[in-house]
Amino acid sequence: MKFKFEVIHQSKKSAARVGRIHTPHGIIDTPSFVAVGTNATLKALDSKAVDEIGLQLLFCNTYHLLLQPGADVVAQAGGLHKFMNRKHPIITDSGGFQVFSLAYGSVADELKSRGTKKHDGTVLKISEEGVLFRSYRDGAKVLLTPETSVDAQKKLGADIIIPFDELPPYHIDSEKLKKSLDRTHRWEKRSLDEHLKNSNGQAMYSVIHGGIDQDLRKQSCDFLTSLPFDGFAIGGSIGKNREEMVELLKFLMPRMPKDKPNHLLGIGDLESIKQIIPLGVDTFDSSYPTRAARHGVLFTKEGLLRILKSVNKTSSSSIEEDCNCFTCKNYTLAYLQHLFKAREISALTLATIHNLHFMVRLMEQYRSDILQDLI
Amino acid sequence: MKFKFEVIHQSKKSAARVGRIHTPHGIIDTPSFVAVGTNATLKALDSKAVDEIGLQLLFCNTYHLLLQPGADVVAQAGGLHKFMNRKHPIITDSGGFQVFSLAYGSVADELKSRGTKKHDGTVLKISEEGVLFRSYRDGAKVLLTPETSVDAQKKLGADIIIPFDELPPYHIDSEKLKKSLDRTHRWEKRSLDEHLKNSNGQAMYSVIHGGIDQDLRKQSCDFLTSLPFDGFAIGGSIGKNREEMVELLKFLMPRMPKDKPNHLLGIGDLESIKQIIPLGVDTFDSSYPTRAARHGVLFTKEGLLRILKSVNKTSSSSIEEDCNCFTCKNYTLAYLQHLFKAREISALTLATIHNLHFMVRLMEQYRSDILQDLI
Repeated sequence: MKFKFEVIHQSKKSAARVGRIHTPHGIIDTPSFVAVGTNATLKALDSKAVDEIGLQLLFCNTYHLLLQPGADVVAQAGGLHKFMNRKHPIITDSGGFQVFSLAYGSVADELKSRGTKKHDGTVLKISEEGVLFRSYRDGAKVLLTPETSVDAQKKLGADIIIPFDELPPYHIDSEKLKKSLDRTHRWEKRSLDEHLKNSNGQAMYSVIHGGIDQDLRKQSCDFLTSLPFDGFAIGGSIGKNREEMVELLKFLMPRMPKDKPNHLLGIGDLESIKQIIPLGVDTFDSSYPTRAARHGVLFTKEGLLRILKSVNKTSSSSIEEDCNCFTCKNYTLAYLQHLFKAREISALTLATIHNLHFMVRLMEQYRSDILQDLI
Repeated sequence: MKFKFEVIHQSKKSAARVGRIHTPHGIIDTPSFVAVGTNATLKALDSKAVDEIGLQLLFCNTYHLLLQPGADVVAQAGGLHKFMNRKHPIITDSGGFQVFSLAYGSVADELKSRGTKKHDGTVLKISEEGVLFRSYRDGAKVLLTPETSVDAQKKLGADIIIPFDELPPYHIDSEKLKKSLDRTHRWEKRSLDEHLKNSNGQAMYSVIHGGIDQDLRKQSCDFLTSLPFDGFAIGGSIGKNREEMVELLKFLMPRMPKDKPNHLLGIGDLESIKQIIPLGVDTFDSSYPTRAARHGVLFTKEGLLRILKSVNKTSSSSIEEDCNCFTCKNYTLAYLQHLFKAREISALTLATIHNLHFMVRLMEQYRSDILQDLI
């Protein structure tokens, strides 16, 4: 099956839409939550468990996989799907986000530390060619360029890949941001050219940049949508809080091509999801639901349930009475609290299963609501 | 179903035998490996996964469960089986082993440190009544006596429970060892009396002590087998190496009642198993197979497979080609090595599944061999 996107229903009430992305490894029903499986595994779950939960798209990180086990090892196994025994679609990023997070710190780190640089240890050189950095694993020098990133992503063989881009810091003056954007555009074009030499059944989403500067976002959108990308991701700094993000998306989403899928990078908290879906966002990825699970923060329709709270100590209820996930069918809150307090590994697995299942079910509900024009 | 033991076949070649222990939660086919699930979970696996592997008896530790979540919390959940959602048999120990390990260090610690005490931090007082110690969790003082241990084990509700005993250090003079043994006998008798006030469908195995002193072992065996215990465990110091252990068992096993099940405490390496089964050992517990798994040491018929070895980096084979465990059916050595190198939690789960499955299958093979008088 070749990559194809179809809009099933456009809501009459908002820009929300229900769609279907066809990929060589099956369908992604949109809007869809994309879980993050950095190292070719979702943390605390194996691929078969993820399949059972019904997660349709998994996000793997090229930067991490380049350093361990290396793209060639994955290629030799027949690509990521065979390597990790996943039958359903996978998306990989370019590695740019992580390597620039090393250089500049992530936006979150940066906002916490008020703009001071923290993590500049391992990036050796940033130039027009790309980024030279030192592997945190073995100290080897690694050159990441549009071409090497696409080459790595070809070897990984994900259904959807992403061009190499720069992640500029949140605190950056507008001249530097413009320069960064121009270079990102050149890098994305080079990535696309490299990709199109052998598209290999893979789709490539561009990444629209421009920080929180609406003019630059428009320029980026205009430029990138003029190129034959298969979809459009929104990346870079999208604001220091939810309000800035929503304001930016209200400006940007109407300018996105309606016939192509879009993806919002790095967003997955429940309140943000509620606000971005009516703006027409198709897919979005976040490690938040699974990371929260590992910290004992469980998702319920009534809000977050903190498993360590004393009220759960003797509770014979499941996390959610009407949830039919493996965890809720088999284990009580009292037992889950005990596993967390005893620092047992199975606590992480069981909590992750529930939160991931919650997200899958939540997205089914969103799609159903859009189909009925309730959203 | 009440507790009952039957010998199915006595080998013509050795003291090895195939038996069947009936418990309120089902059958244990012997010889049987007993996995250790200290905190009411086998590390890195949930109860349903353990069931699927076919493990018949799980060993939980009263000491740990007393401190977290507390015996009353488990009792309120309806006992360990309901608390952890395990349908098959469970055995609990008395807590004595752990509390005396705190006082004297374990035999292994002690042999490593050549007899110097290391862990005497939290034991406050040892008297005829029992042991007063401080909880490592909240600093509370806890009194463990024959009566409180049995009371806790009643609340936990395991199918097989163990009387409170003293674990004397390996390096101990014979007079002190004799005194310890006499006290252990008094404690075990008190435990049995407490148990028989309300046997509650549970069986109690005594623990035969006496260190590596054959006279004392014989005394212990004679005294304890004169009491109406349901089975007999062999505990205390059973030697500083496998040779001493085998020598002791060759002396002790012929003196054990043939019509009752026996259990060897804390042994589970493959070479020891090979030597103890012909001596007539029915069950034995060890955390070694699952702990080894978490360290990337995988069991195969050809010996131990160390997953981190470079030869596995690109191997598309499973751990064992003819193994039908979940891990071997789904994942390659290359992928498992990657998960271990990336320090992913799923590595621990997948490795544990294989080693536990290996042990279950190994015991099936032993039983089959005994039935054919090959062992």
